[in-house]
Amino acid sequence: MEEKHILLAHGSGGQLTRELIEKVIVEPFRNPILSLLQDSAIFSREGLKFAFTTDSFVVKPIFFPGGDIGRLAICGTVNDLAMSGAVPLYLSSSLILEEGFPLGDLEKILDSMRQAAEEAEITVITGDTKVVEKESADGIFINTAGIGLIKNDVEISPFQIRVGDKIIVSGYIGDHGMAVLSEREGLSFRTGLKSDCAPLNKLVAKMLQVSKKIHCLRDPTRGGLAAVLNELSRQSGPGMIIEEEKVPLREEVKAASEILGIDPFQVANEGILVAIVDSQEAEKIVAAIRETPWGKAAEIIGEVIPYPEGMVLLKTGVGGTRILDMPAGEILPRIC
Amino acid sequence: MEEKHILLAHGSGGQLTRELIEKVIVEPFRNPILSLLQDSAIFSREGLKFAFTTDSFVVKPIFFPGGDIGRLAICGTVNDLAMSGAVPLYLSSSLILEEGFPLGDLEKILDSMRQAAEEAEITVITGDTKVVEKESADGIFINTAGIGLIKNDVEISPFQIRVGDKIIVSGYIGDHGMAVLSEREGLSFRTGLKSDCAPLNKLVAKMLQVSKKIHCLRDPTRGGLAAVLNELSRQSGPGMIIEEEKVPLREEVKAASEILGIDPFQVANEGILVAIVDSQEAEKIVAAIRETPWGKAAEIIGEVIPYPEGMVLLKTGVGGTRILDMPAGEILPRIC
Repeated sequence: MEEKHILLAHGSGGQLTRELIEKVIVEPFRNPILSLLQDSAIFSREGLKFAFTTDSFVVKPIFFPGGDIGRLAICGTVNDLAMSGAVPLYLSSSLILEEGFPLGDLEKILDSMRQAAEEAEITVITGDTKVVEKESADGIFINTAGIGLIKNDVEISPFQIRVGDKIIVSGYIGDHGMAVLSEREGLSFRTGLKSDCAPLNKLVAKMLQVSKKIHCLRDPTRGGLAAVLNELSRQSGPGMIIEEEKVPLREEVKAASEILGIDPFQVANEGILVAIVDSQEAEKIVAAIRETPWGKAAEIIGEVIPYPEGMVLLKTGVGGTRILDMPAGEILPRIC
Repeated sequence: MEEKHILLAHGSGGQLTRELIEKVIVEPFRNPILSLLQDSAIFSREGLKFAFTTDSFVVKPIFFPGGDIGRLAICGTVNDLAMSGAVPLYLSSSLILEEGFPLGDLEKILDSMRQAAEEAEITVITGDTKVVEKESADGIFINTAGIGLIKNDVEISPFQIRVGDKIIVSGYIGDHGMAVLSEREGLSFRTGLKSDCAPLNKLVAKMLQVSKKIHCLRDPTRGGLAAVLNELSRQSGPGMIIEEEKVPLREEVKAASEILGIDPFQVANEGILVAIVDSQEAEKIVAAIRETPWGKAAEIIGEVIPYPEGMVLLKTGVGGTRILDMPAGEILPRIC
C-alpha cells in the first residue's frame, strides 16, 4: 500500500477497497475459507453446510426514500447469505449509538429491522449495544451477522462459472444508490427515486426450485454492477460481455446520474441480484424471476466469454465495445 | 423509558443499559432465544447444538497496557461463546474505520487479532470493512460475531443455578477496566496496571474435564462483578452472598480505584470468569482452574442463598453485610 492513512476511497467498494482487503486485512488471518473472499464463508459440520457472513452499515442519511439503515442492515446480511445459496436462519444485531441519538429514531429503525426480518422469515437471536460520546460516531452504526444453511446439492460460487453461461440481472440497477444520494444532496423531491432495498432469499429459493444450474449469485452492492462483474470475472477466469441496452435502467436513475455525474453501473444496489447460469436454463430462470415481486424487470444482459480473460466488455448502444472497468476513486461513500 | 435521547449511561452495562435493552431493543424482535438475554444465543440443527454471539468494541484508548482493541475484539467474543459452554469455531470481523486512521495502527491491531485468534485456536472466516468521514467515528470500531459448538451433555445457563451452589471467580477483579482507565487518564505510569484480556475457552475446557456440575459461567465485562452477579441472581431466582475478603483484588487496583473514585466491583474484566457450581465439586473445580495459566488466583467467593430472592449481599471485612447493587449511572464508558 502506498498510502499511510485510510482514505474514503478505501471504503468505496472499488480498486482501493480490494487492495486494502487483500493486502492488509485478510493477510494476517489467511486461511482457506477467508481467502475465497465470498459474500458468505461456508463451513461444514456433521454433513451440514453452513454459510456465515457479517456486514456493518454506516449509510448516510440513516433515513432515505424506500428504507433506512435498519432495513438495510437486515436485507444486506440476508442477501449475502442468499447469494451463497443458503437459507438464512439467524441474525445478530449490534448497535453503536452516539450519545444524544433520539430514542424515537432508534425505535423507528428497530421497527423497520423487525419488519424486514419478518419479510425474510429470519430471527434475530443475539445482539449487543454500545454507546460512544457525542461526535465519536455519526448517530448510529449497525452490524448484522448471519447464519444460513445450504442444501447439499446446492453449489453456488464464482468457481462454477463456465464460458457460455448467461448473465442475468433481476431488476433495475442503481435505484438504491441514487435514492440515497438524492436524499443526501437534497434532490429527492426532483428525482422521486426510492431505494429497492429488499430481502432476496425467497427470490433465490424460487430460482433454485426451477433450476439446479445456477452457477453463481451476487448482489451488486458497493461499487455496483461494474465492481461485481469485474470481481466475478477475475475470480472465475473467463471474461464477460454485457449489452448495455439490455441492462434495466429507469429513466429517473439515468437522469439523476447525469445531474449528479455518477455512473449508474457503479452505484450500489440493495434489492437486485446478478445470476450467472447455464445458457440452456437461462430463459426458464428469467421467467421464474419475473414471476416474483422482486424480479419483474429481470433481463439476460450478457454472457461469459473465453477472452479477454478476467475482463468485462460493454457493448454500447451505438454499436461500439468498451471495457467496463473496476470502479476507482471515492465513488460513493456511505451508501450502505 | 423516561429519557428521549441516548445517554452515555445507556452503554455502561448497568441499570440503564438493562432498561434500554429490555424495553426498547429486544421488544421488536421478541423470540424465545433472544429473550433469554444470554452471552450467546443457542440453537440446534440435526442434533447439533450451536452458540452464536456478537459484540462491538469501541474501547478508548485503542491501545492500552496489556492489549488493544483488536485483542479485545477476539477475546470478548471467544469468551461469550465459552461462557455458554461452547467450543468456539469461527469468527467474523467487521471494521468501521475513520478516514485518516493510520494504516500502521490498523496493521498493529490486525496483528494482535491474529495472535489472540491463534491463542484461542479459532479461525476468522468472514469480514467486512467500512470507511466513514473524519469525525464520523473515533478511529476504529470492531465488531466480531462468533459461532461455537456445544457438546450435548453440556448445559450451562442461569437456569441451572441452585441454592447452595458455590460462586467462584477465576482471578483478580478490575485489572482490565482499571488499566484502560489509567491509560485514559494518563496515570498508567503510576498504577503500572495491565489488562488481563485473554481468551478463556481453554480454561473452560479444562473445567469441563474435571466436572459436569458447572451450572453457570459468565465473564464479568461491562458493569463488572456487581452487574453480573445481580443479573444472574435476578435471572435464576435465588439470592447470593459474597465474602468481600475472598474476592481476589490487587493492591494496585485497590489503590487506583481510590485515586479514580471507582468501585472495583463495577469495573469491566476481560480475562476472568465467574463460575457457579455444585457445592460438592467446587474445591475440585477451583483446583483445576488454578492449574491453568489463566486462573492462578481463583477463589470461592460466596454461595447461592434462598433469600433475599434476586439480590446480592456482600459480607464486608468488618463483619457487616450490605447489598451489592446493580451499578447505576455512567460508571465507565467505552471500556470494551
